[in-house]
Amino acid sequence: MTYELRAIGWVESELTDRDDAPKQGDEGAPEAWIAFDPAVREAYADVAAGDALLVLTWLHLAQRDKLRVHPRSDPSRRLTGVFSTRSPDRPNPIGLHRVEVVAVDGDRIRVRDLEAVDGTPVVDVKPVLQLDDR
Amino acid sequence: MTYELRAIGWVESELTDRDDAPKQGDEGAPEAWIAFDPAVREAYADVAAGDALLVLTWLHLAQRDKLRVHPRSDPSRRLTGVFSTRSPDRPNPIGLHRVEVVAVDGDRIRVRDLEAVDGTPVVDVKPVLQLDDR
Repeated sequence: MTYELRAIGWVESELTDRDDAPKQGDEGAPEAWIAFDPAVREAYADVAAGDALLVLTWLHLAQRDKLRVHPRSDPSRRLTGVFSTRSPDRPNPIGLHRVEVVAVDGDRIRVRDLEAVDGTPVVDVKPVLQLDDR
Repeated sequence: MTYELRAIGWVESELTDRDDAPKQGDEGAPEAWIAFDPAVREAYADVAAGDALLVLTWLHLAQRDKLRVHPRSDPSRRLTGVFSTRSPDRPNPIGLHRVEVVAVDGDRIRVRDLEAVDGTPVVDVKPVLQLDDR
């Protein structure tokens, strides 16, 4: 069974190379913009500065046929099933990023910190239910 | 732009009616099974009892054309953009569920607590990075 995801926005970031991107947002990732598709404006109309959000992305550079990886790309760590890792390489490469909204500017929101590279499609945004969620 | 998700497993639960399901797993949801597609066995081979996981589902009963909802289906609450709510109704109805693995039985894992209904497709599984993640 397959299901069709649609991009509802895109990441605009100074990060352009997957190999340069931090593994997690709290490991030195920069601020970035999320530019929404105006077609879903009503869905993001209530997002405001200060909100803690979970951003779901489609990691378009990932390898979908990898089922095991060395965690954190460290060859000294044993091959581990991807469902026990946060590797972007996995059957459905959905990224999950906890961010804070810094500013809202029309159809774009400024967030910190986001380790996804420039051009990454955004497929969903959800509010954090607990402050230390990620 | 669209992207193709593939089910990597399915929820087996006593919950069969969306209207009877709790809004969140910690609001009285039952234990449930996740039955994996054996084609991705290597990916879940390291999942073990006691693991805290984030399960991503495809909420197949959701309405994708809803951009605003009354939070928690409470008509007394004002219509709110779905990206500021956890409503299953949203452009890409991806469910995010924090669960604990109770047992592993071949290609199935028993988890608590999961508010998704029986037959819900599972599209990804990730380890929790913080114990109070959800």
